Amino acid sequence: MKLSEIAQLIGAKFDGSDREITSMNTLSEANENEVSFVANAKYIKEISSSNAAAIICDKSTKDKVSTDRVALVVDAPYWQMAVLSAKFAPALEDVSSPKAIIGEGSMVSAKAELANGAVIGKNCNIMAGVYVGSNAIVGDNTILYPNVVIYRDCKVGSSCIIHAGTVIGSDGFGFASNKMGIHKKIYHIGNVVIEDDVEIGSNTSIDRAVFTSTYIKKGSRLDNLIQVGHNCEIGEYSVIAGQAGLAGSSKIGRSNVFGAQSGVAGHLEIAPFNTFAARTGVTKTIKESGKTFAGFPFMEHRTWLKIQGKLARLIK
Amino acid sequence: MKLSEIAQLIGAKFDGSDREITSMNTLSEANENEVSFVANAKYIKEISSSNAAAIICDKSTKDKVSTDRVALVVDAPYWQMAVLSAKFAPALEDVSSPKAIIGEGSMVSAKAELANGAVIGKNCNIMAGVYVGSNAIVGDNTILYPNVVIYRDCKVGSSCIIHAGTVIGSDGFGFASNKMGIHKKIYHIGNVVIEDDVEIGSNTSIDRAVFTSTYIKKGSRLDNLIQVGHNCEIGEYSVIAGQAGLAGSSKIGRSNVFGAQSGVAGHLEIAPFNTFAARTGVTKTIKESGKTFAGFPFMEHRTWLKIQGKLARLIK
Amino acid sequence: MKLSEIAQLIGAKFDGSDREITSMNTLSEANENEVSFVANAKYIKEISSSNAAAIICDKSTKDKVSTDRVALVVDAPYWQMAVLSAKFAPALEDVSSPKAIIGEGSMVSAKAELANGAVIGKNCNIMAGVYVGSNAIVGDNTILYPNVVIYRDCKVGSSCIIHAGTVIGSDGFGFASNKMGIHKKIYHIGNVVIEDDVEIGSNTSIDRAVFTSTYIKKGSRLDNLIQVGHNCEIGEYSVIAGQAGLAGSSKIGRSNVFGAQSGVAGHLEIAPFNTFAARTGVTKTIKESGKTFAGFPFMEHRTWLKIQGKLARLIK
Repeated sequence: MKLSEIAQLIGAKFDGSDREITSMNTLSEANENEVSFVANAKYIKEISSSNAAAIICDKSTKDKVSTDRVALVVDAPYWQMAVLSAKFAPALEDVSSPKAIIGEGSMVSAKAELANGAVIGKNCNIMAGVYVGSNAIVGDNTILYPNVVIYRDCKVGSSCIIHAGTVIGSDGFGFASNKMGIHKKIYHIGNVVIEDDVEIGSNTSIDRAVFTSTYIKKGSRLDNLIQVGHNCEIGEYSVIAGQAGLAGSSKIGRSNVFGAQSGVAGHLEIAPFNTFAARTGVTKTIKESGKTFAGFPFMEHRTWLKIQGKLARLIK
Repeated sequence: MKLSEIAQLIGAKFDGSDREITSMNTLSEANENEVSFVANAKYIKEISSSNAAAIICDKSTKDKVSTDRVALVVDAPYWQMAVLSAKFAPALEDVSSPKAIIGEGSMVSAKAELANGAVIGKNCNIMAGVYVGSNAIVGDNTILYPNVVIYRDCKVGSSCIIHAGTVIGSDGFGFASNKMGIHKKIYHIGNVVIEDDVEIGSNTSIDRAVFTSTYIKKGSRLDNLIQVGHNCEIGEYSVIAGQAGLAGSSKIGRSNVFGAQSGVAGHLEIAPFNTFAARTGVTKTIKESGKTFAGFPFMEHRTWLKIQGKLARLIK
Repeated sequence: MKLSEIAQLIGAKFDGSDREITSMNTLSEANENEVSFVANAKYIKEISSSNAAAIICDKSTKDKVSTDRVALVVDAPYWQMAVLSAKFAPALEDVSSPKAIIGEGSMVSAKAELANGAVIGKNCNIMAGVYVGSNAIVGDNTILYPNVVIYRDCKVGSSCIIHAGTVIGSDGFGFASNKMGIHKKIYHIGNVVIEDDVEIGSNTSIDRAVFTSTYIKKGSRLDNLIQVGHNCEIGEYSVIAGQAGLAGSSKIGRSNVFGAQSGVAGHLEIAPFNTFAARTGVTKTIKESGKTFAGFPFMEHRTWLKIQGKLARLIK
């Protein structure tokens, strides 16, 4: 898509030299053929170092854009980013891609669907009702139980086990809202990357990234009915019990253990080697390791126990 | 079904003039060809204005039924209503209906199943493993990702996106229980109506109404793993984050925002334009707008913050 | 598998008379052709009465093993049990079993998949996208809505209704972890047994037992998006509302009622006829009946109400 077309689409003025734009990305990840945006004061500091060809911004931030980048000035940058995302979203399936490739020794049910461009490794079991989308890649020795769905462009490592009904790569919960309360979908151009030796239970949902990737790192264990929001990173060997949920963009260090029905708010970082009791609600970044937490809002587990003791005495 | 047959089935005495009964419904919604019931003191006041042909009631309420209606007097009206509901439940599929109709420009996977009587609009994408039941209607430009299930008689609007594994129209959690603790299923004769421009995440469950409809109104956004109970109404442009749950029959006004893992009890009304923090548990009707709530039982968010502060000081 | 091969696989010394071992099991359930293990001090008292042919143990527990049993001494019994479990896990499907048997009057969608060895009773409805695994048994008059998955060897009773997307028999959340934090999968050799007249909502997950069975007893009602962990027993006529979760190995007596989003920790016993309010988190065994509980950690409902009242007054 031409930069001039983008400007026209989002209602920005543009009279520089035109060029082809290949995709969208965050300020820090965008390359010189991509367009980015700034819609949150937190990211203003990333404008000057961004390699993006053009940056969607508003009047208040346009002067931060260096003169060798194009500032596309609009009233509502987040909304216009959402508008533009629809143009860079790929088709649901790449019908023109070659037929799916299936590695030696793999069993693929006649009732599974492999979209064009999908690649299945060796010695896999792809059971009935599974869907693997275009350009999705499944590593060797991996089992996809019935009715697992892998959306297009996602990657599942080797020696993984994914139980029935689990969905990898659905769009994250992202949209811009205007003053009328109307929501505009942000198309999710990123994917999910599941590394090797990961087991995921049944009916779990792992959303794809807006841009870049949602990561489930090697050796992790996820239980049933878990929500992993867009752009999260689950560190190596982490353990997440049933019905826990992670909002978007949180980065979990290795070997964290989350109890059942626990939750993590968005945009947090959690250092490695912590344990979270069932129902813990993590609301802040955690820089320490080796601790056990509980409660909502969360606190050290021993503090939580003391408060429960005090409460019990309150009523005596 | 003849009124006399209904009376016999549920063990009520009936010696008036017989007539054909077409369905069951609530007191307020029943028409003159339908049978209704009263099983809860809360609804006694609706007996006199009901248009139902006959009302299943017990000895204590039979005198409230006006003389131009038939009172079907039984010991356990709720149980007998459940017994009768089985007779009015339609078949799982209408095999005698014509083949499904698919609008121009729509792509339907050969691995999707469209039951007889289903209607798919124009330019839709119905992906592999999707099931659309008899007489279900899907509007134009709608995407059903793999393994979505739309039960019979449900309606999905235009320009909707429903992510993989989501179920629309499963029976609500309804049954009558006797003194032995045995449960009798209440068949759900209603449906789900999803209006235009709604996006729903993956592995979410939206139950059909007992009678009438469960509504998801236009422009709403629902995330993954959400539970919407039978007969709920989700107002326009509402936003419901992952793993939130709504029990049955609650009416949510427009533009309400529910955080992750929040919950709403049954039979409540929530005024428009409120915000609920993650994990909020709404236990009462809310008549105000523009507020932010938190906690369980819920309270204003600033009050909840004060209580957390007090608790923290308790243990010092 | 020969006992000598087992010893070699797990690095234990063995020089007794060899014999064929058919499976693995718990200390109390193992028969004379099975191998068992002790990895938790709680179970040491069961060693002496176990009928297992051999017991995987460490140096500290080997002397408890009676002389007519074989003690397989290793450094990490739980890890070695996990290693061995892979050898006794059956294939994903028994391709050599006879074709599935379908009872008279049953409708099976051409888009359902019945693995070899599956048995479907009479007058069932097996809808599109359903998967029934090898040697799984479905009783008469049962409805499996679209995309239900019944893993191999599981049993579903007569007159059951299982709603769309529900998964019966996925592996439980079980693994051994070493000092490096690496997890070793425990293969789940058990199954799920669902008795007669059970209804289960949509997108619910019920895990199979490690050994023996996870039970959902007759007449129970489970709602949507519920997690039932491995080796649980849900008593007759129990009621579990949406998004509730039970960790592994808890035994729930008959006619218990669990509110929405409630939870039960692992290895508990709950006496019959109790009620748990929404969000209750049960953390201890309950020996009384007829009570109503709430809160997390749980307490009697009236106590919880008092605490909420005190908290409200705290901030005035």
